[in-house]
Amino acid sequence: MLDVGKQLEIIRRGVVEIVPENELVEKLKKSIDNDKPLTIKLGLDPTAPDIHLGHTVVLQKLRQFQDLGHQVIIILGDFTARIGDPTGRSETRKQLTKEQVLSNARTYESQIFKILDREKTRVVFNSEWLAPLGFAQVIELAAKYTVARMLERDDFAKRFKECLPISVHELLYPLMQGYDSVALGADVELGGTDQKFNLLMGRTLQKEYGQEPQVAIMVPILEGLDGVLKMSKSLGNYIGISETPREMYGKTMSLTDELMLRYFELVTAVPMEDIKEIDTGLENGELHPRDVKMRLAREIVAQYHGHDAATAAEEEFKRIFQQKDLPDDVPGFNVTNDMLENGAIWLPKLIAMAKLAGSTSEARRLIQQGGVKVDGEKINDPNCNIKPASNMIIQVGKRKFIRITV
Amino acid sequence: MLDVGKQLEIIRRGVVEIVPENELVEKLKKSIDNDKPLTIKLGLDPTAPDIHLGHTVVLQKLRQFQDLGHQVIIILGDFTARIGDPTGRSETRKQLTKEQVLSNARTYESQIFKILDREKTRVVFNSEWLAPLGFAQVIELAAKYTVARMLERDDFAKRFKECLPISVHELLYPLMQGYDSVALGADVELGGTDQKFNLLMGRTLQKEYGQEPQVAIMVPILEGLDGVLKMSKSLGNYIGISETPREMYGKTMSLTDELMLRYFELVTAVPMEDIKEIDTGLENGELHPRDVKMRLAREIVAQYHGHDAATAAEEEFKRIFQQKDLPDDVPGFNVTNDMLENGAIWLPKLIAMAKLAGSTSEARRLIQQGGVKVDGEKINDPNCNIKPASNMIIQVGKRKFIRITV
Repeated sequence: MLDVGKQLEIIRRGVVEIVPENELVEKLKKSIDNDKPLTIKLGLDPTAPDIHLGHTVVLQKLRQFQDLGHQVIIILGDFTARIGDPTGRSETRKQLTKEQVLSNARTYESQIFKILDREKTRVVFNSEWLAPLGFAQVIELAAKYTVARMLERDDFAKRFKECLPISVHELLYPLMQGYDSVALGADVELGGTDQKFNLLMGRTLQKEYGQEPQVAIMVPILEGLDGVLKMSKSLGNYIGISETPREMYGKTMSLTDELMLRYFELVTAVPMEDIKEIDTGLENGELHPRDVKMRLAREIVAQYHGHDAATAAEEEFKRIFQQKDLPDDVPGFNVTNDMLENGAIWLPKLIAMAKLAGSTSEARRLIQQGGVKVDGEKINDPNCNIKPASNMIIQVGKRKFIRITV
Repeated sequence: MLDVGKQLEIIRRGVVEIVPENELVEKLKKSIDNDKPLTIKLGLDPTAPDIHLGHTVVLQKLRQFQDLGHQVIIILGDFTARIGDPTGRSETRKQLTKEQVLSNARTYESQIFKILDREKTRVVFNSEWLAPLGFAQVIELAAKYTVARMLERDDFAKRFKECLPISVHELLYPLMQGYDSVALGADVELGGTDQKFNLLMGRTLQKEYGQEPQVAIMVPILEGLDGVLKMSKSLGNYIGISETPREMYGKTMSLTDELMLRYFELVTAVPMEDIKEIDTGLENGELHPRDVKMRLAREIVAQYHGHDAATAAEEEFKRIFQQKDLPDDVPGFNVTNDMLENGAIWLPKLIAMAKLAGSTSEARRLIQQGGVKVDGEKINDPNCNIKPASNMIIQVGKRKFIRITV
């Protein structure tokens, strides 16, 4: 095992907050002294098993803990997922069957083990210890926390203030999540900064149940391709880890230059020394941002599809973009099925939706004036329907481009 | 069965509120049509099985329902009592063992069947249906009510406003009590006006679980012997139903005249027609308040000790009070063990505590001046220690009396 200082340096990489760091130091010391790995907990919601790069920030951190010799436990919150939202009001929290939970778990595993070491990972379901709790034990658990402190949680506070209903059972969910830490005897729990309340709940409950409290480690929320908003599927600014090498590579190349180093730090395993060298190289002009971004794209593709696929994706990208003299950072535009009719879309509509023109009539005019190209070919017919394909390039005027993703 | 109108008249006796009365009418109609008694619920807390007249108001109402042919179910809340207060903070809600709960239940039964018809009463423990509930079912239950509505309950609202802690599990207790109504399919639940929130919770939960909601019937909170404050053991203004005939009779005679009719209505089975006659008799001067109060005392003693004991208590009372020309309404003063030293109390101290004098020195002076009598005997020694006994009369000056209770 590495010494405490070296371990801390790795653990601190990209991290926003460690609560409290002195306890982590103590735990690491004890772990080294007794040659006993720490138990690192991550809870995952099995309702949405489609992982994008935003989710991998915390997985990369888990991988670092594994490489340091610690024990990682992934908890799939199947108990809450199987209960669902008993009020039936929430669309997002539908009750899952046992089969759906197991199927989602398999989907998760196929993804997370692209980052985590399968041999050093335990995946458990929290129904194992939550389902057998009886009413008396639930009351004992619920006695450990006050209503007022519960209502301090951001989302509860907001709803309570706005007189939006919060059902009593919702107060039990954070307690469940905290109880998971008790059941596992977790030493460390990881989560995004938005999970702070829940991570600290684990600390509180462990103390209440007479355990040494876990240390909460908060990783940042990754910005999406737009460089501003949180990466999320619904915002369309994401790179899914099951996307094709070509997609991943292209999307990474559309990232703003400012975010490149942050992505290196948070979603790749590239050592910090290398990242610092890249930073220096960019600052003194020895490195071209485009080349750095291509390395980032290669690293990301390689993580999920292997080196050969990364090289192939790079070759294709060069062929399409560099040989056609396109800028590297052509933004992606995702064409979804509901935009299509018989698999095609009316070109002026596509141009307007992608905001390359202010309206379909403006788009029609631009086409008629010869200002629109699809994959380098000028289109003159304003009634043209096109079948979108990945990496198809739509160009309007001299400087406006989009790269289609499907 | 009596017709709806006659039943309603009896049910309305002394009642503060019926929520909602039109549903009660419907239930009574259906009950008569189908010759099926209504299920009448009363929940009792098995931690304090010592019953005083204040508790009997609701029991008298249950008895009236029984006489009307309905089915009474007493729920002993053993489940909450066996859990106790898991925070360990509350002195009043200690965890009871199974043996204590059973012993308290027997104490209850020996008392309540002085009012209720044993043959027409079911006594059940709510652990029967609450203990087997698992976490998933607790969540389902807790989903039926919002935090905001729960915090509207008077005591919660007060504590929340004053930033006093309310633990999450406390929000589960009203849900349990409401769930009892679901488990029993209650048609009517009885309680004091202070139980309104809990009684309405039963209605809400029954609707949520697809049942016809119960009707909530609220009886008044009985004033104690002082005529102002709620009757309560800790205030010392109570008549316990296990007290001796002599105690009960004497305490009743110390009641203010204003409360007599209210006591007739709420804690005796004297028919309303008789009570109205008494009222008229008092108003037109045909009846003397003392005689009316003696009938009340007889009725109360007879309920708990039989007619012979009531007659004997009355005879003793007459001998002590009327033959010695004492006023009927000599207030009681309860001497507790902690006031005694070797079974006795220093007379000036007793006089001061009973507020017959402003201080022990004033009491000493009054004794020296020959102004103090114990059971009619003048006491001249200011150092006198007396051994208090029930119905011992302490007189100070011409008009100040107390009647000792021990």
